[in-house]
Amino acid sequence: MGEFDLIARYFTRPARADGAVALGVGDDCALLAPRPRMQLAISSDMLVEGRHFFADVDPHTLGHKALAVNLSDLAASGARPLAFTLALALPRVYEPWLQRFSEGLLRLADAHGCELIGGDTTQGPLNICITVFGEVPAGQALLRSGARAGDDIWVSGTLGDARLALEALQGRIDLPADTLAGARARLEAPTPRVALGQALRGIATSALDLSDGLLGDLGHILRASGVGAEIDADETSKLIAARALFTGATARFDMELLRQCTLAGGDDYELAFTAPPALREAVAGAAATAATPVARIGRISAEPGLRLADAQGRPLAGRYASFDHFGG
Amino acid sequence: MGEFDLIARYFTRPARADGAVALGVGDDCALLAPRPRMQLAISSDMLVEGRHFFADVDPHTLGHKALAVNLSDLAASGARPLAFTLALALPRVYEPWLQRFSEGLLRLADAHGCELIGGDTTQGPLNICITVFGEVPAGQALLRSGARAGDDIWVSGTLGDARLALEALQGRIDLPADTLAGARARLEAPTPRVALGQALRGIATSALDLSDGLLGDLGHILRASGVGAEIDADETSKLIAARALFTGATARFDMELLRQCTLAGGDDYELAFTAPPALREAVAGAAATAATPVARIGRISAEPGLRLADAQGRPLAGRYASFDHFGG
Repeated sequence: MGEFDLIARYFTRPARADGAVALGVGDDCALLAPRPRMQLAISSDMLVEGRHFFADVDPHTLGHKALAVNLSDLAASGARPLAFTLALALPRVYEPWLQRFSEGLLRLADAHGCELIGGDTTQGPLNICITVFGEVPAGQALLRSGARAGDDIWVSGTLGDARLALEALQGRIDLPADTLAGARARLEAPTPRVALGQALRGIATSALDLSDGLLGDLGHILRASGVGAEIDADETSKLIAARALFTGATARFDMELLRQCTLAGGDDYELAFTAPPALREAVAGAAATAATPVARIGRISAEPGLRLADAQGRPLAGRYASFDHFGG
Repeated sequence: MGEFDLIARYFTRPARADGAVALGVGDDCALLAPRPRMQLAISSDMLVEGRHFFADVDPHTLGHKALAVNLSDLAASGARPLAFTLALALPRVYEPWLQRFSEGLLRLADAHGCELIGGDTTQGPLNICITVFGEVPAGQALLRSGARAGDDIWVSGTLGDARLALEALQGRIDLPADTLAGARARLEAPTPRVALGQALRGIATSALDLSDGLLGDLGHILRASGVGAEIDADETSKLIAARALFTGATARFDMELLRQCTLAGGDDYELAFTAPPALREAVAGAAATAATPVARIGRISAEPGLRLADAQGRPLAGRYASFDHFGG
């Protein structure tokens, strides 16, 4: 099967008629027709075998994840997904793999009304590069740079389970089978918080999505906003779904692993955002609208730097390094 | 050097103030602010070592080519370049390479006012994925589907020199040193016909850019438009810059190689387009405006299929297969 057959069979669909996509797959360029007073939010992520996923990952979940990490960036900007392009390097054309991959990819795309409008396929070491497009009313995008001293710091959903799964899959810890299954789903098929991001427009002063680990990612907000933060490590550690493993007389793992997973886990694809304390009810309302839980884990301060404390307010000195795509 | 230092050092520049780019590198998403009544033309290309370039290619020319092939898609749509994203997988961070690569990339970007607004960097086998954005007045994009029986078929610039260089670099032919240098420049640093594409809006009935070889690429126009074509192979073969090698008593190479290069060479990154004979003067005017030579090489017919003839109108039966990114 050649390049054009491959695109036709797995990645070409009829264009929707809602007007945002004027021309889809099949010409030199796709055409988007933005609505008046809308800006186009754009993000691009590249996933590489061995770095972002295991060679034996189910291609269905890989298709899901490849788009999910991009939708997560749109969510962090408060944008509504419109469309995406897919560039795909494959060692060879293996149809069962393509079938599963495109199913996982397009199922998530359909769930968000996000249309595949073009891209590229070529032979090469497996590499998936998606560029996603969303729309956001001009001037209303959530940025990293708007956090102010006194703002609450919030995160959505759960934290640390993806890292917990990674620890188990790489043989460093043992997890009960059902816990592993749940944690692995968080690692391999994250849920982009698209509805929450849009609901937070006009409420959050800053936002970003958590891909490399909470503390490192929060650092981007702090630097962009010129502020610091105090984080309640104990409140944060409660956000792991698998918390039963760490508590009570039957705890299987120690607090250090719990903190590593929740504070610097990576691959969470939750939103972290800031909002003034006066808007706590509005934040709760946005969370309810989006059917997405949120939790308050700290506060922005004028003093630069990021300080960790336990529930008693005692400083924690531990170092929790985030993931660097060129580091360890 | 980590991922974020790398982006800051080589790929972050101050945003221009002309308004199309509302937010550049450094947030979860970049923001484009399209002008009223403009559509956004989008194209994505992935370049892989060994498939699209040699491992020892000068990174400066590689940076140029990676963007040039994308700008060529905008040209084929008649769009004005605005911005692009760059996703880059690198085996390791080697600063002299990055320096040269970003210089070649950004020099071409600056020449076209095309701003780097975001992307991704990661460790992995060398892979360059660029997604480019241009603007075109709504309804005026050049498409593949508008060719009509009776239209002239035109191509810009020169054809076949990139393939000639490839034949020499892969040791199948010998080229004089100065000819090789010129042909190699066409292979490694193609010139996207951006000005010509915009000048052809309202004149050309269809257009596309030549990346895989003239005949195969023309086939996309024929299928999309539901028409056929007659091509003058001798007229086409005159479009190779290195034609002295094929003519006269001192000819070094045979007609078959000449036809292979010009009809099915690949990597030309010229525009092929169609226009009614009544608009020949308008085509000449557009070519003059864009300072880009164009040549008429055939005619669209109602009868499906693509027919080759020599200067005497005799049919040519040779098969000239275009490049397929999953084929030979």
